[in-house]
Amino acid sequence: MESNLKAYAEKIVHALETRLPNPEHPPVELSLAMRHSCLAPGKRIRPTLCIAACEAVGGSAEDAIDLACALEMIHCFSLIHDDLPAIDNDDLRRGQPTCHKVFGEAVAILAGDALFCLAFETAGKSPIPPQTLVRCFQVLSRSVGIHGVVAGETADILAEGKPVEAKLLEFIHLHKTASLISASCEIGALCGTQKSSDIHALKQYGEKIGLAFQIVDDILNEISTTEQLGKKTGSDRELGKATYPALYGIEASMKQAVELVNSARANLQSLEGNTSFLDGLASYTVERLW
Amino acid sequence: MESNLKAYAEKIVHALETRLPNPEHPPVELSLAMRHSCLAPGKRIRPTLCIAACEAVGGSAEDAIDLACALEMIHCFSLIHDDLPAIDNDDLRRGQPTCHKVFGEAVAILAGDALFCLAFETAGKSPIPPQTLVRCFQVLSRSVGIHGVVAGETADILAEGKPVEAKLLEFIHLHKTASLISASCEIGALCGTQKSSDIHALKQYGEKIGLAFQIVDDILNEISTTEQLGKKTGSDRELGKATYPALYGIEASMKQAVELVNSARANLQSLEGNTSFLDGLASYTVERLW
Repeated sequence: MESNLKAYAEKIVHALETRLPNPEHPPVELSLAMRHSCLAPGKRIRPTLCIAACEAVGGSAEDAIDLACALEMIHCFSLIHDDLPAIDNDDLRRGQPTCHKVFGEAVAILAGDALFCLAFETAGKSPIPPQTLVRCFQVLSRSVGIHGVVAGETADILAEGKPVEAKLLEFIHLHKTASLISASCEIGALCGTQKSSDIHALKQYGEKIGLAFQIVDDILNEISTTEQLGKKTGSDRELGKATYPALYGIEASMKQAVELVNSARANLQSLEGNTSFLDGLASYTVERLW
Repeated sequence: MESNLKAYAEKIVHALETRLPNPEHPPVELSLAMRHSCLAPGKRIRPTLCIAACEAVGGSAEDAIDLACALEMIHCFSLIHDDLPAIDNDDLRRGQPTCHKVFGEAVAILAGDALFCLAFETAGKSPIPPQTLVRCFQVLSRSVGIHGVVAGETADILAEGKPVEAKLLEFIHLHKTASLISASCEIGALCGTQKSSDIHALKQYGEKIGLAFQIVDDILNEISTTEQLGKKTGSDRELGKATYPALYGIEASMKQAVELVNSARANLQSLEGNTSFLDGLASYTVERLW
């Protein structure tokens, strides 16, 4: 799994390189800030899922690569804004100083905006048929704003320091993380097939591993060291964040993550293509813990 | 002109109302912040241009209304972020307290992000043919990020307090303002026709009145009162901003604006449709000064 993931990540980083503004593109500080955040080492889970979902329904990586890059750009934009002093105030991300620590708050806000915009610009260059591309735009935009990532992040910061409720916790995790991961799988599927049942199955698979992924992230934030994660740990507890371990304890949270992964793997069974990588990736989501 | 503008603005506000999240949509603070900024009184120049450009090439307002709303949402997103303490630090906008003054910095950043995203979601629901819609997405995304508004705003803040150079000043104004106004006209044209020469003429018209509009804005910032503009005045000079009056003086700046408007009006002459409103709007850009 690790070597497969590495191969996807390398392909994606290469594609990002050619789609990001070059370091001399004016304003230079903006281009450098976008590159700093988007090219920092990362697992590239979302674009990998997009490409792998496309391949699982018979499409090629080339069909999905522009959308895959768009998904990673959106993920990076959300990380830059979440790390800002006014939001989570994090100094470290992917083992590097956060964007605002290097370029200042103003440029970091604008670099996030520019990456978000570049995501749509990049998606707009995809060679897939216009009708499919419009559907991808619909899924992508719906997964990020008031129905997705931004809503989850807002609910997350508004919940800080308050008693954690199960319903709100699910809202936060479904929106903050599962939404874009689910969209990654759905968009990948759209790039490779027109078969509604396959597209739906991959969307469901994505939502479940997205939720499992966030639960595992919550657990790792509790039990890992900063060196292991490349970002500050224990910070959720300090901030009084709504997390699965805070509500259910670590053991019950792990159990929920495993159940979600098993259910996600079951969603793959209706597909005719080769789903072994996606199956392994689902398991990998929780194996990070062992 | 005033009553025509008012009629367009009313139509647009009504369309925005139905496309913004309702005030109870969770997270409530996010929905309220989005509505606060997007429904504040404004001239709605960009969506008005979009609809009027569509009509000028034989299309209907209905063909362009989703894209018009998207353009206004993007404009509002950029205002929210520009007003933030880390950027222009403005307390007043459109005669109301700025978003972060009412909802705090974190929610304001996220409300900007959510409006930006809603713009693409709204555009994605347009009934125009997918092939045209993809072209609109391309123009829209290119006009905002590293090739448009965000690049202009970044260059603007990085130039603060430094000696103003003509080339940089033009870069800032072309990107910060003219880019989205030009895109508004081009997108409106795309919604109404497939004739390349008409689309190109309206794009050129938009770029010129966009530049004229920003020059006039710079002049008004110098010579108006806060009550007249509904935002802080004299702030450009205080911040050492790169402006046309700072570089060329007020009289020469006015002359440049008038020349741009005349050139924009000339672009309309090749169109067959009714361009009297767009012609009047070009003149109105500089008439705000008299």
